[in-house]
Amino acid sequence: MSLTFSVQQTSGTARRATVQLPHGPVETPIFMPVGTAGTVKAVPQNVLEEVGTQILLGNTYHLYLRPGHERIRRLGGLHQFISWPHPILTDSGGFQVFSLNQLRKVTPDGVQFRSHLDGSSHFFSPEHSMEVQIALGADIVMVFDECTEYPASRERARESLQLTMQWARRSRDYFLTHAQEVPWFAAFDGRTQNLFGIVQGGMYPELRRESAERLVELDLPGYAIGGLSVGEPRQHTREIIESTLPLLPADRPRYVMGVGYPEEIVEYAAMGVDMMDCVIPTRAARHGLLFTSEGRMNIKNLRYAEDRNPPDPACNCMVCQRYTRAYLRHLAMTQEPLGGALNSVHNLSIYLDTMRSVRDAIGRGTLPELLSRVRGRIDVHAPSA
Amino acid sequence: MSLTFSVQQTSGTARRATVQLPHGPVETPIFMPVGTAGTVKAVPQNVLEEVGTQILLGNTYHLYLRPGHERIRRLGGLHQFISWPHPILTDSGGFQVFSLNQLRKVTPDGVQFRSHLDGSSHFFSPEHSMEVQIALGADIVMVFDECTEYPASRERARESLQLTMQWARRSRDYFLTHAQEVPWFAAFDGRTQNLFGIVQGGMYPELRRESAERLVELDLPGYAIGGLSVGEPRQHTREIIESTLPLLPADRPRYVMGVGYPEEIVEYAAMGVDMMDCVIPTRAARHGLLFTSEGRMNIKNLRYAEDRNPPDPACNCMVCQRYTRAYLRHLAMTQEPLGGALNSVHNLSIYLDTMRSVRDAIGRGTLPELLSRVRGRIDVHAPSA
Repeated sequence: MSLTFSVQQTSGTARRATVQLPHGPVETPIFMPVGTAGTVKAVPQNVLEEVGTQILLGNTYHLYLRPGHERIRRLGGLHQFISWPHPILTDSGGFQVFSLNQLRKVTPDGVQFRSHLDGSSHFFSPEHSMEVQIALGADIVMVFDECTEYPASRERARESLQLTMQWARRSRDYFLTHAQEVPWFAAFDGRTQNLFGIVQGGMYPELRRESAERLVELDLPGYAIGGLSVGEPRQHTREIIESTLPLLPADRPRYVMGVGYPEEIVEYAAMGVDMMDCVIPTRAARHGLLFTSEGRMNIKNLRYAEDRNPPDPACNCMVCQRYTRAYLRHLAMTQEPLGGALNSVHNLSIYLDTMRSVRDAIGRGTLPELLSRVRGRIDVHAPSA
Repeated sequence: MSLTFSVQQTSGTARRATVQLPHGPVETPIFMPVGTAGTVKAVPQNVLEEVGTQILLGNTYHLYLRPGHERIRRLGGLHQFISWPHPILTDSGGFQVFSLNQLRKVTPDGVQFRSHLDGSSHFFSPEHSMEVQIALGADIVMVFDECTEYPASRERARESLQLTMQWARRSRDYFLTHAQEVPWFAAFDGRTQNLFGIVQGGMYPELRRESAERLVELDLPGYAIGGLSVGEPRQHTREIIESTLPLLPADRPRYVMGVGYPEEIVEYAAMGVDMMDCVIPTRAARHGLLFTSEGRMNIKNLRYAEDRNPPDPACNCMVCQRYTRAYLRHLAMTQEPLGGALNSVHNLSIYLDTMRSVRDAIGRGTLPELLSRVRGRIDVHAPSA
């Protein structure tokens, strides 16, 4: 593996650090935009760079189905295929296999599932997930796990965890013997990808503990907390993160998968989370929901129809520098593709600026003030007229 | 009115000129991207600037329906509403009233029609079209005309032309007495919009002649040839343009509406056309059809699935500088919104670069060579696999 993690500053449980990856450094705490099928929907790569994206997330499940991992391997890997020369992380495909498939069949060996696109039959095992992720060639790859559904009984969560632990070990074993097959291995002087483990265990702290302890034995370069944002109350999410983080090695990156709202990513970073990803900023954008320094804004609301202010007067993004709420509302109401694109650029800017503020605040020792400011945000969202 | 037109160079029937408009100069011959509802679908305004857009076309019909011309007037006019401080031209709404409505009712007074969005009933007269266009506040506005359908008998085309001529006069009369109502009148030291006439007459040269002669009597600052690209053979389009152009004043801009393919816009510019607009580059882009220096390319074709070349190796646009055919094919096949956006940027670049080459060639006296190069293009489009 080939990651270095160096903590520069701490502030309580939070830390500011640099993760050195084959395709460049990542300053943490960081939010990762989600580029599902090799594209952050509607946002071109140069704009992702302009808003400060350091690392992109790609979805293994989607890329495996289209255009196929072998095709991407022949094209030099995901970085070259999507023209993104900076760091990338891929998930294991597990989350989508479980969330997009009603007819999946789980065995100790792996998961049989049908494509959500054409119903064709596929099989993912830990070994196959790793094979696909090695072909994609992200800087960080994830063990294949079962994302435990919510709610789940303790018995069910324990069984699911046992499977996940076996799969984590098989993922690691396959990865260690095939890591040199990554498309850019030769070009990067033999540096390889980095395999992260995923803590599961549902909403049961003692299962989370067991999961974390057994994963740490695998001596992986980074650890994620998975199985959150699956429908549980927010308070549970927070408690699981808070109780699990101290069980993970402090000298390695800690990643919480699939979170969250702007207030939440600040809060989790303050707890000591280094990496986060979520579809919220882009998905919300396509539905006309903007995040601003004052709170959330439903841009379709009639109150904005003749509002010549920028979406967020405190925001310096390219959207807020040029366009009005009235124009963005018009684009949303007419379902013009530019609307979702501009809203996405703004929301991503807010998320990435937020994490930049967190890093700055850790550096200056002002994180508590930032936290209380974020918690005090007024919600400017109003019922649609 | 407030337009100046100065011819710098000529080459045969072609001329290179500058049209000075309230919101800036336009170098002709020029192609105008179509921003139907106040947006060139999926392309942000800064990118329109980067690819060299000098003047945008807005559709009066669409903007009248959403967000409404009075709203745009209150927001300072179309330039401010869409954050486009450069020249804009609006059509009269006539073309869409006729092409998007099966149940329209035409009387000498105007046209009763139903919204293609919600079936609501509306009425457009020459006076109302001008009122709407004045509220939108484009630099160039068009008389309200009936776009004669194809095919049309000589009798039908003559009747339609009579109506169009009455409407042109009424458009002018209304415009002259209301021109000071444009939203930016005071801010621009009393400069106003410019009203262009539209030659109709179907595919009948003698009707086209009558139309042109009677329009010229109205002493308008520019003239368009309308009623083309309505399904007629290309050869007819070319003949009508060729025979009508000499009937229009050489000291005023000449605009052919709704054309064409890249080869055609070069050819028409060589005939002496100064301005053109068309949805082809953006509409084709959304369907995966790219224009290149070598001809047309259906990017969905399987042959491009692992093609790491840029869409057009001879093109310097931001898309060709960064992305491969393989990636654009993937975006098209997965119907990702970024695909239509990037294809649109490339196609618009090709169109605007083409017109830049035409202007350069007129200046250097090499237009004949450019023309024969363009006519000799190989079509790289192949049947979809």
